[in-house]
Amino acid sequence: MRKTIIVEKEDVELKNPILVEGLPGLGMVGKITVKYLIKQLKAKKFAELYSPHFAYYVLVNDKGSIKLLNNEFYYWKDDDDGGSDLILLTGDSQAQTIEGQYEVADSIIEFASKKNVSMFITVGGYRRDVVDKPQVLASATSPEALKKALDAGSLINPPGSPVVGAAGLLLGLAKFKGIEGICLLGETPGYIPDPKAAKSILVILMRMLNLKLDLTDIDKEITKIAEIEEKMRKIEEQRKAAEREIRRIEEEKISYIG
Amino acid sequence: MRKTIIVEKEDVELKNPILVEGLPGLGMVGKITVKYLIKQLKAKKFAELYSPHFAYYVLVNDKGSIKLLNNEFYYWKDDDDGGSDLILLTGDSQAQTIEGQYEVADSIIEFASKKNVSMFITVGGYRRDVVDKPQVLASATSPEALKKALDAGSLINPPGSPVVGAAGLLLGLAKFKGIEGICLLGETPGYIPDPKAAKSILVILMRMLNLKLDLTDIDKEITKIAEIEEKMRKIEEQRKAAEREIRRIEEEKISYIG
Amino acid sequence: MRKTIIVEKEDVELKNPILVEGLPGLGMVGKITVKYLIKQLKAKKFAELYSPHFAYYVLVNDKGSIKLLNNEFYYWKDDDDGGSDLILLTGDSQAQTIEGQYEVADSIIEFASKKNVSMFITVGGYRRDVVDKPQVLASATSPEALKKALDAGSLINPPGSPVVGAAGLLLGLAKFKGIEGICLLGETPGYIPDPKAAKSILVILMRMLNLKLDLTDIDKEITKIAEIEEKMRKIEEQRKAAEREIRRIEEEKISYIG
Amino acid sequence: MRKTIIVEKEDVELKNPILVEGLPGLGMVGKITVKYLIKQLKAKKFAELYSPHFAYYVLVNDKGSIKLLNNEFYYWKDDDDGGSDLILLTGDSQAQTIEGQYEVADSIIEFASKKNVSMFITVGGYRRDVVDKPQVLASATSPEALKKALDAGSLINPPGSPVVGAAGLLLGLAKFKGIEGICLLGETPGYIPDPKAAKSILVILMRMLNLKLDLTDIDKEITKIAEIEEKMRKIEEQRKAAEREIRRIEEEKISYIG
Repeated sequence: MRKTIIVEKEDVELKNPILVEGLPGLGMVGKITVKYLIKQLKAKKFAELYSPHFAYYVLVNDKGSIKLLNNEFYYWKDDDDGGSDLILLTGDSQAQTIEGQYEVADSIIEFASKKNVSMFITVGGYRRDVVDKPQVLASATSPEALKKALDAGSLINPPGSPVVGAAGLLLGLAKFKGIEGICLLGETPGYIPDPKAAKSILVILMRMLNLKLDLTDIDKEITKIAEIEEKMRKIEEQRKAAEREIRRIEEEKISYIG
Repeated sequence: MRKTIIVEKEDVELKNPILVEGLPGLGMVGKITVKYLIKQLKAKKFAELYSPHFAYYVLVNDKGSIKLLNNEFYYWKDDDDGGSDLILLTGDSQAQTIEGQYEVADSIIEFASKKNVSMFITVGGYRRDVVDKPQVLASATSPEALKKALDAGSLINPPGSPVVGAAGLLLGLAKFKGIEGICLLGETPGYIPDPKAAKSILVILMRMLNLKLDLTDIDKEITKIAEIEEKMRKIEEQRKAAEREIRRIEEEKISYIG
Repeated sequence: MRKTIIVEKEDVELKNPILVEGLPGLGMVGKITVKYLIKQLKAKKFAELYSPHFAYYVLVNDKGSIKLLNNEFYYWKDDDDGGSDLILLTGDSQAQTIEGQYEVADSIIEFASKKNVSMFITVGGYRRDVVDKPQVLASATSPEALKKALDAGSLINPPGSPVVGAAGLLLGLAKFKGIEGICLLGETPGYIPDPKAAKSILVILMRMLNLKLDLTDIDKEITKIAEIEEKMRKIEEQRKAAEREIRRIEEEKISYIG
Repeated sequence: MRKTIIVEKEDVELKNPILVEGLPGLGMVGKITVKYLIKQLKAKKFAELYSPHFAYYVLVNDKGSIKLLNNEFYYWKDDDDGGSDLILLTGDSQAQTIEGQYEVADSIIEFASKKNVSMFITVGGYRRDVVDKPQVLASATSPEALKKALDAGSLINPPGSPVVGAAGLLLGLAKFKGIEGICLLGETPGYIPDPKAAKSILVILMRMLNLKLDLTDIDKEITKIAEIEEKMRKIEEQRKAAEREIRRIEEEKISYIG
């Protein structure tokens, strides 16, 4: 493979489709969000993207089966006549070089254009050291597109901050094909997978896209991650207490000897 | 996007045009200089350059609007019959790889050649640890071209020093198209944006190109940067004073306990 | 040379061939395994692969002769009518960049496809800090292919672990040409050439491919490496003993002076 | 410029030409050697090579003139009827990436092949920590070629050692065009320009190519470098003496206070 390729598994007709992208990145926010959409909407895979710009390894799953890194396109058909169908894009990897990022984004946009996509929504994380209730920060290719995200409850993305990788490039490049775009970033410390930030984006998407989603499962993931963090906090506390005790004993020893 | 492209917004006829380039680099000297020219001359944007060799992120402006990194061409028409029109080139980024630098420079030269550009003037910073009154250091593709820069008050660039990035490559490659070139570097420590170095180049350019520029605004920027530097100096002094005080108290404590 | 090329030295007809690949990597397990197969089976070289993505140096052999880095294809004909002929692939280097890895893998697969290869077996090392008796860990492109490796005594590769480089990519990409694949990784600490891990793979391959191999020579290599390790261990011990002695003398000196 | 190009300034007919290459590298041995040949033989420049794989800066010479990095071809005609004309290749830079190294070597070989070159001699440095009288270490594409270098007084290059960069790749790739090659490496510590290593190669080349060269100038360069090294040694000695003195005074102070 010497170029990025998209292999179509099924030729689907989609009605006014919107593409929602969430690939691996900060806090895995984008990937968690889109994978949750795929699961809840029971979206169906219809195309795979492969690229010589992904990392040069393959994955082994729990049955010893080998998988070449890829990105995957799923579709979901909206029963509502006036609504928009969705294309959901997620995957194992982003391109590892600058030129690769441009080539992969280009392939995705060409494919989306062929499928008559009129709007991209890209999803990811926004680094904040401390996050109580994660806000969603929005930017867009036009004031009209931005308004949709703001009306649904997101805030304007702080100026000057770059949007890195596919979430940014897809929107920057889409305008050459006349496709509008919105970027939604959930605040996250970003050092572990962050379903809380993903949930905050899901809430915005539900309003923007008029979706009905059951959020029980992501709440469970949030609880699970919170428990892991709590455990890590306790271990750290015990480690510090042990260190204090050691220091105390050493000081006693010194004063005793002295 | 898989190749560098130039998108023309307006097809302008230019009279004997000279292209002045100033892209991000040391002390942002080149970019400050050319942006100032654009503003003062009320130059008009007529073309944009995009490249898969720029960094792979997009910028968000203060209205939440997304912008793909680019370089921009502006033009200014000289009312004087005997004069030269100007093409002014600045932008967000330089190419991030060696091959990208050559490809982008190549695209610019091709475009300039199509527009009948006969001369390039590239502008940037020259690292000097301490700079009192910044000098402008010139090099050129021919002794005749160099003479123009020296006559206007610049000094010869020290031999053996490389001119890095677009400012250098554009001139090195332009000769293949028979285009002359001059490089003007303003002395700068280079660690913060340096409007003082930019002003020294603007003075030279005014003489070389017979331009009338109001320098009030750049003087204001110089004052602003000087104030920031003064504030940083004071904070640093306070920090040092606080440290000294802490040390003094600790020593007192020790001698009291002792 | 601007593209990866394969130079065929002899046009051989092969019966239902299986390709076994072992290139430089962790503990040199893959290369040791395939070189051993070549020697024991008296396989014959019939093609060479060259690539501008290998390292940019040449090797000098013990007669002062210069050799461009390459990969080499050998063949072995199975006398048994129902058996499979083998193509054995090893070499000096793997590609040094991501894009290079994909291009070289692609060239190998195209060549194998032309030779009617129906199955790839890729061989390498799996990092384990401590290894008593190295296990062989298998993954594959299909459950049927995996079963062959498990029936021969290997274990399922732990899920989630990536298979890096040619051993992984060849299998991930082969499926586009309808070629099946099995990956066999021998457990190894990986910091020195590890014939013990290679032997454990040879035993599995003998069963899978119904080969008769004399393992005396690899046992000798294992003994040799074990002796080198033992020597290194002793030198390390002597170094530590010397250090202890120096410290003892210094302490004596201090207590004497004190 | 998007590909490596060779610009011919003069179309010369050469008799059985041998190409001698010496580009920047370890101790600058190759470049010093070939530049010396060019000067002594009064060779004439006839072609220039430019590449988007060289570093992305231009050089400024002592007259403020700008020069794009390049490699240069010179020729020298042998008056002797039975002799070989020479092509001498040197320059500012080697390619900065693996793929660039292969592309540039390829361009050189194509050009040489067009000029009917039958033999490459590549020249460079071989790292040795201590070098009394630098030996010349030879490797070659055939035993016959190697014999020429050994007969002229060089030793066989130690096996297993790689020959890095153009000096190696040119020979490794030349065989695809049926061109023979010899590599001559002069022993050098390599941390400063080393005319002594270059001289040892010049002596071998004089014998191999039946050249008459005046070595007075390179002897002067050797003396100059030796003087610089001697000065550096003395400064280092003074620095150490000063440090010892400071320590002595501090110890006196302590014992006085104590």
